[in-house]
Amino acid sequence: MRKLLAEFFGTYWLVFGGCGSALFAAGIPDLGIGFVGVSLAFGLTVLTMAYAVGHISGGHFNPAVSFGLWAGGRFSAKELVPYIIAQCAGAIAAAGTLFAIATGKAGFAIDASKAGAFASNGFGAFSPDGYSMQAAFIAEFILTMFFLLVILGATDKFANGKFAGIAIGLALTLIHLISIPITNTSVNPARSLSQAVFVGGEPLSQVWLFWLAPILGAIVAGLIYKNLLQDTSEA
Amino acid sequence: MRKLLAEFFGTYWLVFGGCGSALFAAGIPDLGIGFVGVSLAFGLTVLTMAYAVGHISGGHFNPAVSFGLWAGGRFSAKELVPYIIAQCAGAIAAAGTLFAIATGKAGFAIDASKAGAFASNGFGAFSPDGYSMQAAFIAEFILTMFFLLVILGATDKFANGKFAGIAIGLALTLIHLISIPITNTSVNPARSLSQAVFVGGEPLSQVWLFWLAPILGAIVAGLIYKNLLQDTSEA
Amino acid sequence: MRKLLAEFFGTYWLVFGGCGSALFAAGIPDLGIGFVGVSLAFGLTVLTMAYAVGHISGGHFNPAVSFGLWAGGRFSAKELVPYIIAQCAGAIAAAGTLFAIATGKAGFAIDASKAGAFASNGFGAFSPDGYSMQAAFIAEFILTMFFLLVILGATDKFANGKFAGIAIGLALTLIHLISIPITNTSVNPARSLSQAVFVGGEPLSQVWLFWLAPILGAIVAGLIYKNLLQDTSEA
Amino acid sequence: MRKLLAEFFGTYWLVFGGCGSALFAAGIPDLGIGFVGVSLAFGLTVLTMAYAVGHISGGHFNPAVSFGLWAGGRFSAKELVPYIIAQCAGAIAAAGTLFAIATGKAGFAIDASKAGAFASNGFGAFSPDGYSMQAAFIAEFILTMFFLLVILGATDKFANGKFAGIAIGLALTLIHLISIPITNTSVNPARSLSQAVFVGGEPLSQVWLFWLAPILGAIVAGLIYKNLLQDTSEA
Repeated sequence: MRKLLAEFFGTYWLVFGGCGSALFAAGIPDLGIGFVGVSLAFGLTVLTMAYAVGHISGGHFNPAVSFGLWAGGRFSAKELVPYIIAQCAGAIAAAGTLFAIATGKAGFAIDASKAGAFASNGFGAFSPDGYSMQAAFIAEFILTMFFLLVILGATDKFANGKFAGIAIGLALTLIHLISIPITNTSVNPARSLSQAVFVGGEPLSQVWLFWLAPILGAIVAGLIYKNLLQDTSEA
Repeated sequence: MRKLLAEFFGTYWLVFGGCGSALFAAGIPDLGIGFVGVSLAFGLTVLTMAYAVGHISGGHFNPAVSFGLWAGGRFSAKELVPYIIAQCAGAIAAAGTLFAIATGKAGFAIDASKAGAFASNGFGAFSPDGYSMQAAFIAEFILTMFFLLVILGATDKFANGKFAGIAIGLALTLIHLISIPITNTSVNPARSLSQAVFVGGEPLSQVWLFWLAPILGAIVAGLIYKNLLQDTSEA
Repeated sequence: MRKLLAEFFGTYWLVFGGCGSALFAAGIPDLGIGFVGVSLAFGLTVLTMAYAVGHISGGHFNPAVSFGLWAGGRFSAKELVPYIIAQCAGAIAAAGTLFAIATGKAGFAIDASKAGAFASNGFGAFSPDGYSMQAAFIAEFILTMFFLLVILGATDKFANGKFAGIAIGLALTLIHLISIPITNTSVNPARSLSQAVFVGGEPLSQVWLFWLAPILGAIVAGLIYKNLLQDTSEA
Repeated sequence: MRKLLAEFFGTYWLVFGGCGSALFAAGIPDLGIGFVGVSLAFGLTVLTMAYAVGHISGGHFNPAVSFGLWAGGRFSAKELVPYIIAQCAGAIAAAGTLFAIATGKAGFAIDASKAGAFASNGFGAFSPDGYSMQAAFIAEFILTMFFLLVILGATDKFANGKFAGIAIGLALTLIHLISIPITNTSVNPARSLSQAVFVGGEPLSQVWLFWLAPILGAIVAGLIYKNLLQDTSEA
């Protein structure tokens, strides 16, 4: 239960901080944080929670990460479903809190016909800068694959493991620096689901890609790391 | 006494650096640091002082943090009042220095009718982007609660404690990235008090929220961590 | 083979993340990440991969780094050519993926007559801010020389080696903060080659400078460190 | 000699990176790095060189730091002059290299009547945002004093010393985030001298303040730390 609660709070923080910074602070004229600030925010949610509760649950906060660690032989199959439920619950609770705060500003409304509405992910007409479904799929697949390579490598028994929280958190910052204009950046099915649930419409119908591509990319990374990169000798 | 002096200097630095960057550098046309720079500045005050004097006083620099650590069983009740006095004294001394420097520029004046004047916190008409009192309360409560979860988790005996200064400092950066438009970001009653004292008027009357919401959020976090997340076995 | 695969993935990530952030996110109106974001992205590719696969290959991801470590007596001559081949292969594969994603946006085309096209490096008319060949040479030479001084120093047996990934990654961020307007920043022959191959024309003819200057700078740094800075006593 | 060479290279890098980013990249329209980027650059020069050559010379790169460490009882009086000469030599060599690169762009000229010309420091008419001499003095004194408190605290035998390079480097970033508009930020007499030498005129006549205020602030910090904050018990 402590593990699942840690995953709940961690994923809550990821969505509240990452999507919250995008909603409240990115587009303020002149002083707004822009995509750099949103990228930093997403990464710092993971960096901070990795040091806070990583010692409890391992600090996944992302169904694709749980799948990738399973594929890499670092996480048990029987914990997959409970972890993913806790992550999705935390993400949706965070999106609900963001909604409650957002309604405290006069004139707030979610326009489901607009790309990136309520920090949702999308492709085609719902890509922030107009990228096709195929481009979105490639980007999400490659980015999640490398996210998992960083996670698997940085937590390897031969690696400098105490720095893993920094490397993994800043990898998520890097991923956002590259891809917000492409898909509004997912690499995390729970984060995509939580925002889409509040937007509905087409963004909700596109959520499948943000489950499929990240999870596939993560599994491929797990297999690559386990079979090609891992040193199998004794530590 | 060494502890209180460390809290005095640490909170001085938090206000001088965080509010100072907002006052002097945020709004310079074209080259100004914006909310990203202010967020970075607040976080770095805590990161730098945590490594500088954390070994002396524990590095709270914030009455809400002292309350949260007390609720979490990590700080003694009898030290609460002296710590908070030292923190408020440091914050007000810093605000005074900022005022002295600001008057060195021709035409400087504090306009108490303007949201965010002299880096003050506020809600409603005094929220930088027009958020209601209720939204401000939720945001300050949730953000301080998670700030304390990061602090309590990152300094847990099972955690990778040497990195706590990085995690905690960057958590404060993250918190600012999310919420400057909502309340100008407090999560720290001393920081709110010091600026309001120089502004007076309505911003000073709103200070109660920036004591109540952060301290409540911190206490809730302390109780959650102690009762639900902490591993009570021997280290 | 594990080493070469690590260099392949690491250099892929460097080009995909660094050049990708420049291509997709730098110039978005109002919200774009600008040169600060691109600088951060390049540095974070190295920081993240240093902690992920540094324990496998040493984490060069750059032919100039391999040359500099060889000149400094830290890398064997016989590994130079395989490493450089793996690095160039990774870089070109990443550029190909970037091209595939970029074509997913309507109207994408590479204009080889434009400075910095497809994130290519250049000087004179192909310098982003119009710097001469001589200025470009000095900048690339000095920057790579100091990059290698940081690498050689931070991994010295007397240094605080676990932090080397942070120091080296952020050195690359710093280098980009200085020099994107001068040459679009190379300090890495593989990164220059991969982009030029897709652009062709004049940017491809200018690639020689981005092999010569960085490699010379790196070798000079190796000789300086080994002969003037290194403590030759026993650790 | 190894120590002095390390100080030479370290201070060269500080000026080349910090002032270079300001000169070449800060003001580029739309994409430029602004004061946030320059702040990051200055801090990263120190962070990177602290891990690279800190184990050789202690990593001062700044006459005020050498004075402050002497006042705090951590540095011998007889090394002060050689260190300061090496630092100034490195700074001036870096400014010369920046000048050589800058002349590679058509139309480059230093206008000594303009605030901040060639990244010089100044007050009054030469303050970037028009701050008086008194405000400039307070700012430089306070900022250098806290810079030294961070340095002395983070390298205390009871502190988490391996993180000192991060804390000290990022303290310099923070200092720049606050004060570029006030004085273009010095806190480092060598950095002020090197740029003023190339500008001449009024900026050169104002250099006295950027020696006096930082060195006084550093000495005060040394005395405060040694007498009031330091734990004198055995480690």
